[in-house]
Amino acid sequence: MSTQTTDPTIRPAQIPEELRDLLDKKGFAHLATLRPDGSPQSTPMWYGFDGGTLLFSTTTGRQKYRNVTANPQVAVSILDPEDPYRYLEIRGVVTQIDDDEGNAFINSMAKKYRDLDVYPWDGPGDHRVVMRVTPVRTYPPATR
Amino acid sequence: MSTQTTDPTIRPAQIPEELRDLLDKKGFAHLATLRPDGSPQSTPMWYGFDGGTLLFSTTTGRQKYRNVTANPQVAVSILDPEDPYRYLEIRGVVTQIDDDEGNAFINSMAKKYRDLDVYPWDGPGDHRVVMRVTPVRTYPPATR
Repeated sequence: MSTQTTDPTIRPAQIPEELRDLLDKKGFAHLATLRPDGSPQSTPMWYGFDGGTLLFSTTTGRQKYRNVTANPQVAVSILDPEDPYRYLEIRGVVTQIDDDEGNAFINSMAKKYRDLDVYPWDGPGDHRVVMRVTPVRTYPPATR
Repeated sequence: MSTQTTDPTIRPAQIPEELRDLLDKKGFAHLATLRPDGSPQSTPMWYGFDGGTLLFSTTTGRQKYRNVTANPQVAVSILDPEDPYRYLEIRGVVTQIDDDEGNAFINSMAKKYRDLDVYPWDGPGDHRVVMRVTPVRTYPPATR
């Protein structure tokens, strides 16, 4: 499975240079998604960053997966785990969802966060996917 | 100023007993609000808890204030600052907004979080208010 949005109106935002390091740290991204009735949901998440998009793992059984497949608009806030008064807010769009082939991504997150080679907490029917979020606005904004 | 919602359809949720201690700790609540176009925003916040409602300080100039006065549906997620794998998600409604008389509430937050008697970071025109969020759903749910 691969779902990709190629909406030409999405103009990716730059991450402010002075906070770029947060995206490599072992913080938590609090991911706001929209429920079917339009009300918000907030979920703490592990995150990865590939230089342009934020990466999140979820399973297809979770409410947040249903939320973003129905409405891809999301927001995240991330505190610096070493100084919570340094933080980054990002509003964005889920532009791509792919199968997590061989669970490569969730295992890389388990390694980053818990020093585990294999993520051990899925059930037998869980189907892992990788959600990519393209930033469209940040707070603070990038100055360059 | 005092804005109060007395929507009789709001049925307050109990906080799960085993996570109740998080609401007295110096964690951060990531507050998801809805922007005018219906997209989500996520903002890290100090919080208080009075046993029933969550309390947040903001100023009337902030986007999140405009968001909740237009649409009171919110969600928060809070990690235990001593163990981020203990966490609480709350969905709720902003049911009351009051002037922060004498800045009593924001000063109590400055005391709780930074051991300051007076919150020092407002500008001369800032107008502090206290937002009360009534929980309507929690994750995990309360078992009793």
